[in-house]
Amino acid sequence: MTTPRYTPLAASLPATVPFVGPETQERGRGAPFAARLGANENVFGPSPDAIAAMQEATGDCWMYGDPENHDLRHALAARHRVDAGNIVIGEGIDGLLGYLVRLTVGPGDAVVTSDGAYPTFNYHVAGFGGSLHKVPYREDRENPAALFAKAAETDARLVYLANPDNPMGSWWTGAEIVAAMAALPDGCLLVLDEAYVECAPDGTAVDLPADDPRLIRFRTFSKAYGMAGARVGYGIAAPGLVTAFNKVRNHFGVNRVAQAGALAALADDGWLSHVRGEIAAARDRIGAIARDNGLVALPSATNFVTIDCGRDGAFARAVLAGLADRGIFARMPFAQPQDRCIRISCGRSGDLDAFAAALPDALEQAHNQAQG
Amino acid sequence: MTTPRYTPLAASLPATVPFVGPETQERGRGAPFAARLGANENVFGPSPDAIAAMQEATGDCWMYGDPENHDLRHALAARHRVDAGNIVIGEGIDGLLGYLVRLTVGPGDAVVTSDGAYPTFNYHVAGFGGSLHKVPYREDRENPAALFAKAAETDARLVYLANPDNPMGSWWTGAEIVAAMAALPDGCLLVLDEAYVECAPDGTAVDLPADDPRLIRFRTFSKAYGMAGARVGYGIAAPGLVTAFNKVRNHFGVNRVAQAGALAALADDGWLSHVRGEIAAARDRIGAIARDNGLVALPSATNFVTIDCGRDGAFARAVLAGLADRGIFARMPFAQPQDRCIRISCGRSGDLDAFAAALPDALEQAHNQAQG
Repeated sequence: MTTPRYTPLAASLPATVPFVGPETQERGRGAPFAARLGANENVFGPSPDAIAAMQEATGDCWMYGDPENHDLRHALAARHRVDAGNIVIGEGIDGLLGYLVRLTVGPGDAVVTSDGAYPTFNYHVAGFGGSLHKVPYREDRENPAALFAKAAETDARLVYLANPDNPMGSWWTGAEIVAAMAALPDGCLLVLDEAYVECAPDGTAVDLPADDPRLIRFRTFSKAYGMAGARVGYGIAAPGLVTAFNKVRNHFGVNRVAQAGALAALADDGWLSHVRGEIAAARDRIGAIARDNGLVALPSATNFVTIDCGRDGAFARAVLAGLADRGIFARMPFAQPQDRCIRISCGRSGDLDAFAAALPDALEQAHNQAQG
Repeated sequence: MTTPRYTPLAASLPATVPFVGPETQERGRGAPFAARLGANENVFGPSPDAIAAMQEATGDCWMYGDPENHDLRHALAARHRVDAGNIVIGEGIDGLLGYLVRLTVGPGDAVVTSDGAYPTFNYHVAGFGGSLHKVPYREDRENPAALFAKAAETDARLVYLANPDNPMGSWWTGAEIVAAMAALPDGCLLVLDEAYVECAPDGTAVDLPADDPRLIRFRTFSKAYGMAGARVGYGIAAPGLVTAFNKVRNHFGVNRVAQAGALAALADDGWLSHVRGEIAAARDRIGAIARDNGLVALPSATNFVTIDCGRDGAFARAVLAGLADRGIFARMPFAQPQDRCIRISCGRSGDLDAFAAALPDALEQAHNQAQG
């Protein structure tokens, strides 16, 4: 008998990872990237108040963080005009998605998502033995009606919908999603990933009572708040579901310094407005760079812009490789036909200057490869 | 049908938590504790180099942390003279224990631990439906021979052993554990929790090849390195087991700032020596305070001292409550007969002054309650 003995499920899982980090690519190429525009991070960074709060809190890091995340949970509840009992905080949305899938999905249970949507959600579903059913995008948007119909057809436990969407940057209004939810089948929880919603037009967030048992909304400090490395995400849901997380979560898992930083970030609305403006300007600039190269930038309600390279996935992959050769870290959608695109995170002027300088050569290289 | 639908296992789990945090108690009593001596935190804190590294890294927290934890993993490998492929890093030992149990324990699978040992391990075993078999302490020490015999008897997947032990502070030499491992049954992985080993006498750590498939050793930056709030723990194991964690872990789950801090902490051996000295002095002082009050301090190889209050669990609980009333946060063992003790983390002079001032009254109050 070999040691250790894995569960049959664990033994069956592939050793793949949802994403390769840019640091891995940098080690492979032997040089750092000139512009880090691939992970939808927010290069404009956290509020200076949040940085100051974290710097001050480092001296306190000999203490475990509050396992109830009390202060942050209450501040978030006040912000969203819900009860603290409607808020669960975890190690990023990624961590919370893992806990949610663990609570609700066993071997063979059906789950629905869009083909090409967030791979980390799929990783968790596979990791707990769920059976994943995928619905295609429609006109580069997730398709709520088709998702909910597939959920009914498969008796799904969960249906995942990111709004705004990653990787396409597209979105629905909150009202459109609420209307579509009339077809959400009984017993199926809507996992509404609103990671990018602070970058989106007003009205994009769903406006429903927090106690509505049909959905859980996920938010994060990783995107508009500029704290991806801090690992603080949260869910807004009915109290029963929030309490259920306490059965399985790593109670002391949220970094104490990060809790202090998130609390300060949440209080600095001025910085959030500033960042929104920077993001909007960077989106425009990325759109202009695309047009200058004969490409089409898709509309975006996020902190990235998805650019249609106009040909197939092989061509877009070649463009991406050409950008990487020139020091630009970017990523692209995984699924056809969205993989005709590349995805560029909003950057500072210098980052986008570097992208603008690299793109023509990367495109030419990709064209030459396609003809060669 | 209610929404969400939980798995049968999730529905069956209690909503209890392994530990109540001191912040929760502080909110309950309406005042902060004067001395925080209950969670085996290291009040002497991290290396100043680690604090400086974390303060500098806060500005980079817009970036996700390296999901491979490459630099820290390689530094740890060099420190332990193993390959980087023998090291897995996670969100504290707590997080890694959860992943390990998930990989190896399914519903009904047997797991062995000591009655009164680390409750968070038990929490994870219950959380994945494992069947927990408990072995009593012997003379206030974990009993490797009895643990491994119980593992053979129950066909256990995992056997948990903390060395040095929490909550008793007792320990075995590494050589004694290696000798006992001759009786470790085939197919059973030894989960050797060495969280406190940097506080212990030389020779307490097990000295076995990292590729030995019979065990995984857990270490942490939470104790001697003074970074409990940072959430960085690691495991040393055979490469196959390390790779298996990649199937289930939250790849981006380790805080970027914490990675930088741990790297700097690991490099500052001078600070570690300093802290070891402070801990040793604090252990002596706690022992003296116990003696001054007619109590017996147990020998300790950790950053806490367990004090035998000489009566039963009810009496020790009353002492603990009396200490809390006087602003001293402490904890105590859960299981009989170890629950005759209270557990005091090593503190600064001022913390221990406060403890020394509070203990006589807390004891008197407990005696009066016992007689009343």
